[in-house]
Order: sequence, then structure tokens, then C-alpha cells
Amino acid sequence: MSTPRKIILDCDPGHDDAVAILLAHGNPKIELLAVTTVVGNQTLEKVTDNALVVGTIAGITGVPFAAGCARPLVREIENAPEVHGESGMDGPAQPASRIVLDERHAVDLIIELIMSHEPGEITLVPTGALTNIALAVRREPRIVERVREVVLMGGGYHTGNWSAVAEFNIKIDPEAAHIVFNEKWPVVMVGLDLTHQALATKEVVQRIEKVGTGPAKFVRELMDFFAQAYLDHQGFDAPPVHDPCAVAYVIDPTVVRTLRAPVSVELRGELTLGMTVADLRAPAAEDCHTSVAVDLDHERFWDLVVDSLERIGEVDLTA
Amino acid sequence: MSTPRKIILDCDPGHDDAVAILLAHGNPKIELLAVTTVVGNQTLEKVTDNALVVGTIAGITGVPFAAGCARPLVREIENAPEVHGESGMDGPAQPASRIVLDERHAVDLIIELIMSHEPGEITLVPTGALTNIALAVRREPRIVERVREVVLMGGGYHTGNWSAVAEFNIKIDPEAAHIVFNEKWPVVMVGLDLTHQALATKEVVQRIEKVGTGPAKFVRELMDFFAQAYLDHQGFDAPPVHDPCAVAYVIDPTVVRTLRAPVSVELRGELTLGMTVADLRAPAAEDCHTSVAVDLDHERFWDLVVDSLERIGEVDLTA
Amino acid sequence: MSTPRKIILDCDPGHDDAVAILLAHGNPKIELLAVTTVVGNQTLEKVTDNALVVGTIAGITGVPFAAGCARPLVREIENAPEVHGESGMDGPAQPASRIVLDERHAVDLIIELIMSHEPGEITLVPTGALTNIALAVRREPRIVERVREVVLMGGGYHTGNWSAVAEFNIKIDPEAAHIVFNEKWPVVMVGLDLTHQALATKEVVQRIEKVGTGPAKFVRELMDFFAQAYLDHQGFDAPPVHDPCAVAYVIDPTVVRTLRAPVSVELRGELTLGMTVADLRAPAAEDCHTSVAVDLDHERFWDLVVDSLERIGEVDLTA
Amino acid sequence: MSTPRKIILDCDPGHDDAVAILLAHGNPKIELLAVTTVVGNQTLEKVTDNALVVGTIAGITGVPFAAGCARPLVREIENAPEVHGESGMDGPAQPASRIVLDERHAVDLIIELIMSHEPGEITLVPTGALTNIALAVRREPRIVERVREVVLMGGGYHTGNWSAVAEFNIKIDPEAAHIVFNEKWPVVMVGLDLTHQALATKEVVQRIEKVGTGPAKFVRELMDFFAQAYLDHQGFDAPPVHDPCAVAYVIDPTVVRTLRAPVSVELRGELTLGMTVADLRAPAAEDCHTSVAVDLDHERFWDLVVDSLERIGEVDLTA
Repeated sequence: MSTPRKIILDCDPGHDDAVAILLAHGNPKIELLAVTTVVGNQTLEKVTDNALVVGTIAGITGVPFAAGCARPLVREIENAPEVHGESGMDGPAQPASRIVLDERHAVDLIIELIMSHEPGEITLVPTGALTNIALAVRREPRIVERVREVVLMGGGYHTGNWSAVAEFNIKIDPEAAHIVFNEKWPVVMVGLDLTHQALATKEVVQRIEKVGTGPAKFVRELMDFFAQAYLDHQGFDAPPVHDPCAVAYVIDPTVVRTLRAPVSVELRGELTLGMTVADLRAPAAEDCHTSVAVDLDHERFWDLVVDSLERIGEVDLTA
Repeated sequence: MSTPRKIILDCDPGHDDAVAILLAHGNPKIELLAVTTVVGNQTLEKVTDNALVVGTIAGITGVPFAAGCARPLVREIENAPEVHGESGMDGPAQPASRIVLDERHAVDLIIELIMSHEPGEITLVPTGALTNIALAVRREPRIVERVREVVLMGGGYHTGNWSAVAEFNIKIDPEAAHIVFNEKWPVVMVGLDLTHQALATKEVVQRIEKVGTGPAKFVRELMDFFAQAYLDHQGFDAPPVHDPCAVAYVIDPTVVRTLRAPVSVELRGELTLGMTVADLRAPAAEDCHTSVAVDLDHERFWDLVVDSLERIGEVDLTA
Repeated sequence: MSTPRKIILDCDPGHDDAVAILLAHGNPKIELLAVTTVVGNQTLEKVTDNALVVGTIAGITGVPFAAGCARPLVREIENAPEVHGESGMDGPAQPASRIVLDERHAVDLIIELIMSHEPGEITLVPTGALTNIALAVRREPRIVERVREVVLMGGGYHTGNWSAVAEFNIKIDPEAAHIVFNEKWPVVMVGLDLTHQALATKEVVQRIEKVGTGPAKFVRELMDFFAQAYLDHQGFDAPPVHDPCAVAYVIDPTVVRTLRAPVSVELRGELTLGMTVADLRAPAAEDCHTSVAVDLDHERFWDLVVDSLERIGEVDLTA
Repeated sequence: MSTPRKIILDCDPGHDDAVAILLAHGNPKIELLAVTTVVGNQTLEKVTDNALVVGTIAGITGVPFAAGCARPLVREIENAPEVHGESGMDGPAQPASRIVLDERHAVDLIIELIMSHEPGEITLVPTGALTNIALAVRREPRIVERVREVVLMGGGYHTGNWSAVAEFNIKIDPEAAHIVFNEKWPVVMVGLDLTHQALATKEVVQRIEKVGTGPAKFVRELMDFFAQAYLDHQGFDAPPVHDPCAVAYVIDPTVVRTLRAPVSVELRGELTLGMTVADLRAPAAEDCHTSVAVDLDHERFWDLVVDSLERIGEVDLTA
């Protein structure tokens, strides 16, 4: 087996962020260097607590968890309690965290890890607003050349959820997104066009339930809440589980078909603020450094999630 | 047969506008009340000359042709010589016009016709920028209640041609488009999503050629130029013939499948100026007065065009 | 005495519009060709009624009064009841109007008058939103060359009242203002920088009262209401009487010192929408066609108003 | 004498930044904790070199000089060679720097200094774009409560130089300015309204020359270049020496009269991007945390500059 891909998972758990953490932790092709948090689905405090809880449930040890930005770069804070509940991860009972938060700021930790690894070693996987990444790259521009690629969950070239044409992670901090998309590192946008294919159907939930472990039970209960929220607020029959799609792409790029296309973030529009504008009119130029995710292999995607849960197995929360 | 639909065709010929005029003139389900022109594909002077030429070639008599606005409402003039050539209708040789331009301004003529007909009688079919229509409705707001519907070629919910996400007719006068989309008349947006299905393939061009008349020859030569322009500038294998799609929808709404959805025009965006933002996230509200065209029945669409050419038959330009 | 200046007064009475009408009617250097109305201080219906009332009180005969646009070009309607009351001209008792509204639309009347007079004869004096003027110039672009100048009350290079930096008349229809400022006719912007000098102080009100006629009493009662509204809502010790300043400039340009400077209207700003951005950094270019009003000769301005009232004298409302 | 005011001078030398450094260094009421640099008048590399040169000429020792951001937060880089020349400090011959650049990033140093001092001890004096300060406050939000006040050179409530209504420092990084103005620390905006009063007239330059030292000669030569640049490009008879005005205000607030008013930065305007919109319509609310500089005591301001030069005296550059 090839060397595992070293990633920093920058997230705001979040039901689907939780699944992303579990997928990354359980899959042997991923080496999780750090989990960092950013305001988004809920306040920084809540999503950070949630990250520690997920890490505990997953039995993650030896990986730093660090809190980052408590507010977007320029705009006021927007959270999404209608999707994720008051805690940001409503649904399952949450055990006490056994992970101690790293004292470093997420932005410093991200810079430190990237600068202390070889160029091309680290992949950034942001599944929340891009505030931490944007701040890191402005504070230390040299990370651009050292990062292997940025595989982010956010945006959508034809699909919106926080407005008709904009997605939540991008719209709540469009300036940060603009910064990340404009730097010359490879950016893979795993947007709603793709993640709305990652539905946790009844069959999927049954497969997860069958794993029969504590972490699997936790995921199933997350999905129960998530399904109801998506049904109530957006009319979905089954909830789209966005964030693990980005992790799945890092594990196996053949699970997610992508298309090279220039992508820019609209910063001024009245109806289109935070839209990820992809120009699909013609084949992308040679030096185009951005791609958009187009098609998901639904079955193999959920295989990966179930596989991770099986590998994680039972976790002793009383240890 | 039911009473023909009375339409005012507001256009900027333009290769595909020419086909729209011919389709409307030849089809017995359409009664052409007037052809009005507006700056767009070329200057007002040129597109007006072209309209008169098309009317001459089609043998149209007794229908007023009137010139309207020579510039957009707020923005500076933009034309599209790269698509339509220097004349706005490059390609075929153009005979001398035998139609005398009506002395009335298009805006006045539109108002006059609508106000002198019964409510619900007239359908507006704009296939250029919406400057004339916007001006008419601001000058005489009562036309809103009297117009049956506005079936316009323009915009696109997922497709752009004058920017990544905006279409030419809307982008060159977005304020006019905003006005038209916001009035409470029924608006059917026949946008690029639909018209990029109306390709003049080789088979289509052969069918047209087979008609064997002067007008058919004229259309074929238009298509030859248009095909080359679309190949050179936008990489299309066959040119999309936008404007007659709107006329086809009026003739037979089953040729164009539409979807009710709220549509607004972005007026401030930097990357999205002039985008027709359709909110497709949920079923439209009961009182939603806008629809977007989704699917074209390609064969029946071209049947209509060929049928019109056959009905028009030969036209004596020396009479 | 030189030939009087022919003006069309396009207004939305409005307390200060009323004074503008009286000033124009009473002064022998002005020939009032028409009074046209536009939505603004109140609905079109109300300001039109008010214009007829003012015309009646002033004893105006033989001058067409015509109603224009009932809503701005692009934006939604905004009125100013907090400044002008529910009627748009609260305060004095209002007699029945004896003037019959002209049947023509203001936009048509404006075009008709300008096109039927010699070039350079007519001055446009808009003291409300610029919707009518904008619509007229888009409908008939040739008026630009025929109008002598546009002397408008609106805007402000350093002063706002409908936001920190925008004035009411411009902000409620910024696209119309943009159109008017961009056409190449001479535009004199009599903005808040100037009109905040035209305070109806106690001394001024006493002078008006002393005239002792019905129209003067009407003006004094308008000023009483206006004073209270400006005290309550904007903290002014005495109310600025904006609109007659534009008329005064036409009567005698030495009463208002102006400065040539390029002026453009901000259409996109979030804090600055509708700001009249004047570039005062350097002397204006030779071909600069816009000026801004800077200094008012307060005494001579009010002399003109009082003089008009004296010339108008008593008006028999029972005749 | 009271305890000196501890300041961090964040600048982009720049002719007037140089004078600001000298003024701060020479005045006993100021304790210079650090000089930090930011891209602006020239590239980060050039302005950092210039800062070291000025520190050398002034004989500054024991004060860290640290480089900060090499580009604005969101926008592309804009420099001002037409004002400051190719080096960013054209004019005088520049000796070799004897100061070694601190290894810390300006943003880290700013945070470190503020967090290690008592609340209320440190005043930030930014005289360039606000990129460093914005980044610092997003990375460590607790600095807001610890900073005594932010006295910045930038903006203008009625005056622009990088557009009709926007000033260079703000316009080149409006998002950073937005961040700084929106945090709840006291902000004193020493803008163009004030600094255009700080003219280096011939009399002023003569007074400086009379000091007779190396640093004074350096300032005089800076002023010679600056005078020519302002004459050539902006038509000024004498150059406005912006940046030391902010330092002068910290030394003696009676030299600069200020007015409390809410100030926000326009981020979307087409003509007004980067305008510092001050609402001067009414007295500021009790909790208004921003002030704008209005009047300069020209004589006492230049007294302070001359006094600093005299106190600095001769500096041995060969030591």
C-alpha cells in the first residue's frame, strides 16, 4: 500500500463533519495530522466541543485538536441551527470528551504543520467556512507552495442551499473563500452538485446500523436527526452527507469525478453573494488550478464510510 | 382551429431573430401584430434594416415594423459582431427592403396595440434586450394587466454566454430585464438552458435546404454563417438557434417543457451581473408568475420551422 | 428686460416644491410652460393633487399640469411622510383645486414641449426624483440637444439626508439620476450643500407673513409644518427650503454660486447608494457638462421668494 | 511629565511615514515599542528597507522593526510610485541600514506586544493600509480590549485622493479597514480632511532646514521630492504630510480637533469603493467609538516635528 495521505481536517461539526472525521480516522489511506475547528454550523465553542466529542467517540489519540476563528473575516456571524440543532450536533447523546484541546490557535497549527513538513506532503481538507485557511495563507503565504492540494467541501456550480445559488460554507465567509480559491494551489471544490448525490438513504443507514458498534450507532443517530432536519427545512427525502465526500476524494479520487474549470467567488452580488462561479463554457486553460466535483459513485462512497466504521470497531469510552 | 395567438415580436435581427420572424409569419397559429426592434446584436439602425429585409424576404405585408430604443436603459451599448457579423445578419446577400418603417416609436406602438386590444389578447415575444418592454411598462403600467404573457428569449438558469453565468440579451440591459421579470405578468423565460438544445445540425440544415425556396435558402445561408461563428467563438459543433424557440413555445407549449420558478436578475454582482437567478430549491409558490424553459422537443421544434418555410413558399422580390 | 426663461417644473409637492411653483409663477423672468409631477415625497396621486392645489392657490391659468411616473425606474417606491406628512403637503388647509389635470402623461408632454420649441429654449427644472426626465430622454434621445440646461434640486457632494451621503430625490431613483447626469446636456446640481443654506428662519417667515395675502399665508403655514418636521426628525433649527433654490438659479444665476465638476451617481454601494459623487480634486475638464451649487446668497434668495408672492398678490379662490 | 504613550507604528515608508517615525522617536511623550511594515506605498520589501533606513538615520536602537503583510487581504496589490517614486522613498540618498530586521512577522509581534502589556497601555498608530492590524485582530480578538486606541492615518469624510471620495490607505485594502473600523476599540481617523492642512510650506521646509542636522537634511530632501510629486500629480502648491499627524495627535490631542461620528467603509461601491462614510447628520450616539480629525493647529504641529528633529540632533551613521 502506498504511503497514507497526510491531511489536516478543518471543520465545524456538524453532523456530516462528524462522519468526515470518522471516515478519515478509520481509513488507512489517510493520516490525520490535526483536526481544526472554525465557526460555522454553530459557534466556535460548540463546534470545537463537538469535534472533541467525535474524536472521543472515534477513539482518536495523538492527533491535535485546535480551535480557530470565532468569526468570519469580514461579515457578521451566521450559524445554521435549523440544520444542525442548538448544539450543532443534535441527535445522539454526547459522552464527555476525553481529548484535551491543543493550546495553539488553529491558524498557527496549520502553518506550523505545513512549514515543518516537506512540500507536497500535506493536503488541506476544509469542510467548513474557509476562514482559518484564508488567515493562514495571508499570515504565511509560503504555505501555498507546500500544500499538496486543497480539497474542500463547499460551493456548488449549479446548486445553492444558503441562497438560490450559494452554499453555506462559502456564503458565510465569501472573502475567505475568495482568498482560498485565488491562491495558486490545486483546489478541488466538492460542492453541492456532488454532495447532493451523497444521500444517506434508508439502505445506507441500515448498512451503518449493521456495523453494530458505538461509533456506528452514533452515526446512525446523527443521520436520524439530519434526515428530519433536511426533510423539514429543505424537502429532501434523504439527507445529503456533504463533508465526507471531500475525505473520500482524498482516499480515492475515482469515487468522485471532477472537471477542471476556473472558479471564482462572487463578493458583491445582491442575489449571488458567495456564489462559486464556475466557467464551464469551454475547456479549462492549461494552468487552471481549480476543479469541481461532478459525479459521485454512491455505492463506493458509502462502502468507504462503512469500511471506516468497521475498522474503527468498538471504542471503550470508559477507559 | 383555434383563434391564432396575437403577438408582438420585439427583436434585434440577428440570425436567429430572422428565423423567429419567419417562423411566426409562416405559422397559422400566430398572428403577427407588429415587429419592433431594439439595439442589441447590432446597432438599432442595423437591426432595424435587417428586420425590414427579413420581412421583405418573408413577404410580410400589412404588419407594422417600428424601431425602438437605440441604447440600454442604464448601461453603455454592447453589440455582438463576433456572433452576428458587422451587419448583424452577415452571410446571405440581402435584397433591398420593400417595407417602409412605421413612423411610431416601438415603445408607443407596443403600448398602443396592447391598450387597444382586449385584455389577454396580446402576447409579447421579446427576443432581444428588454429595453423597449421595460420602457413601455414604465410609461404605461396598465399594459401589465392586459398582456397575456411575456415569452422571452434570454437568460439561463444554469448557462451563460456573455459571461460564465449571464446571457447576452439580459446582460446588456440588466435593469430592463429586472423591470420585466418583476412585473406581475406571466413571464416564460426561454433561456440558454433550452436554446442550446435547438441546434441547427447538418440534418436540420439539409431539411431546410430541401424546402427549396428563396426564404429557405436565406435561412440556410444564415445558418452557414452562424455555424461558423459559433464554432470559432464558442466551440459549438452546431449553432443554437435561440429566438424561434420562444415563438415555438407560443405556437405549441408542448414543444418546450417549462418549470415554474421565481427568477430575479442580479444587478450588482461583479461576476454575475445580469444573471437570471432562478430559485430551484423548492417547488414554486402558488403565485409565482415566472417559468423557465427546460426541455426542447428538438424534432418537433424543427418541424415547426420547416413547416413555416413551406407555408411561406416562394416570395417574389421583384414584384 | 430679456425674454423670460421657459421652464418645465417637474416636481413632487412637497412643501418646498410648492414654494418653487409660487416662485416660478410670480417671477417675470420665468415662463412656466408646464408643471409635471412624479412620485417621491408622496404617491403620484397625492403629489399630483397637491400640485393642482398649489396652482389653484397661486392663481395659475393656462399652464398644463400633467402627472408622470407612479414609481421609480428600477427600485421599489419610497416616500417621505416623516418630512411632508400623510398628504405630502401637510399643514395648511387645502382648497378645492380649480385646475383640471392635463390628460397627457408627463413624459409625453415633456417630449412634446421640447421637440416643438426651438433648441435651447427650454430649461428643465426637476425638483423631485428624475424618473420622468430619464424616461423622456430614453424615449426621445433628441431632447438632449434641444434642452438649454437641466437645473435640478437633488444630491449633494458632501451632504446627505436619506443616508449619510445620499439625498432623497437621487436615492429613491438612482438609475434615473444616473441617466440624467450622464446625458451630455448642461446639468446644474442644486444639492443639499446649497439648499441647507436656504433656511426659512424666523425672520424669513415674518417677511413672508407680512406680504399678507392668501398665497403668503399658505406658504407661512407650510413653513410652520416643515419647521417642526425638520426639528423633530433632523434636528434643524430652521427648515431648509430646497426646491425654490433651483428656480432661483434660473431666475438669477448670481444668487447661487456654482462650480464645474464631474458628477456621477453611485448605483452599487451598500452605504453610498444614490450618492452624487463629485470629483473636486482638480479643476474640471473643458468638456465637463455638470456643475454643483456651492454658495447661496441667502438674502437675495428670499428677496426673490417674497417678491414673487408680492407680485402674485391676492388670489380669488371663489371665482 | 506624565508617562510616555507606548505606540506601535505600523507604516509603509513613504516620505510622510518617515517623518512620522522621526516625530515619534524624537518626542519624549512617545515610547516607540515597534515599527512594523505593510505593503502600500511600495512593495513590502521596499517599504521595509525604507523603514530600516529611516530608523538608522534617526539613530533608533532597541526597537524591533518587523515586516508584515506583502499583500492586501482580498484585493490585488496597488502601490503608489507616482507619489513616492520607485523606491517608495525617492529623493534623498539612502545610507546603508544598521538595523537588523526582527525575525517575527509584524502580525505576531503586534499580538505579542499587546497581550504582554497591560490593557490600555498600547496605542496602535497605523499610517498605511490596515492589513496587519486586521489580520492581528482576527488571529487574536482579545487585542481589541487591550489596545488603548487606534489612531490611524487614512480615509477622509469629504476628501479622496485615490478616487474622488476614497483615500489610498483605505482603498487598497478596504476589507482590512472595514475590520478595523468595526471592532469596538476607540478609533481616531486622521484622514485627508485633516492632513491636507498639514502642508509642508516653504516656511516649514526652511524651519526644518535650519535644524541643520543629518536627519533634518534628510527630511528636507524628502519634502523636496514630495513637493514635486504633489505638484505634478495632484496640483498641490505644498505637499500634505499625512502620517505624522496621527503621531502628533497621540503626543498632544489638542493639536488635532476631532469629532465623534460613526464611520464605516464602503466595500461594494463602484465609484465609492473604500470610502470612509462618516455620518455627520446628527450628534453621535453615546457608544460611538470612532472619531474623525477635523482641524489641525498647523503651527503647533510643525513645532512638534521641528522639536523632534532638534531632540534627535546629529546621528553618527559611521558608528
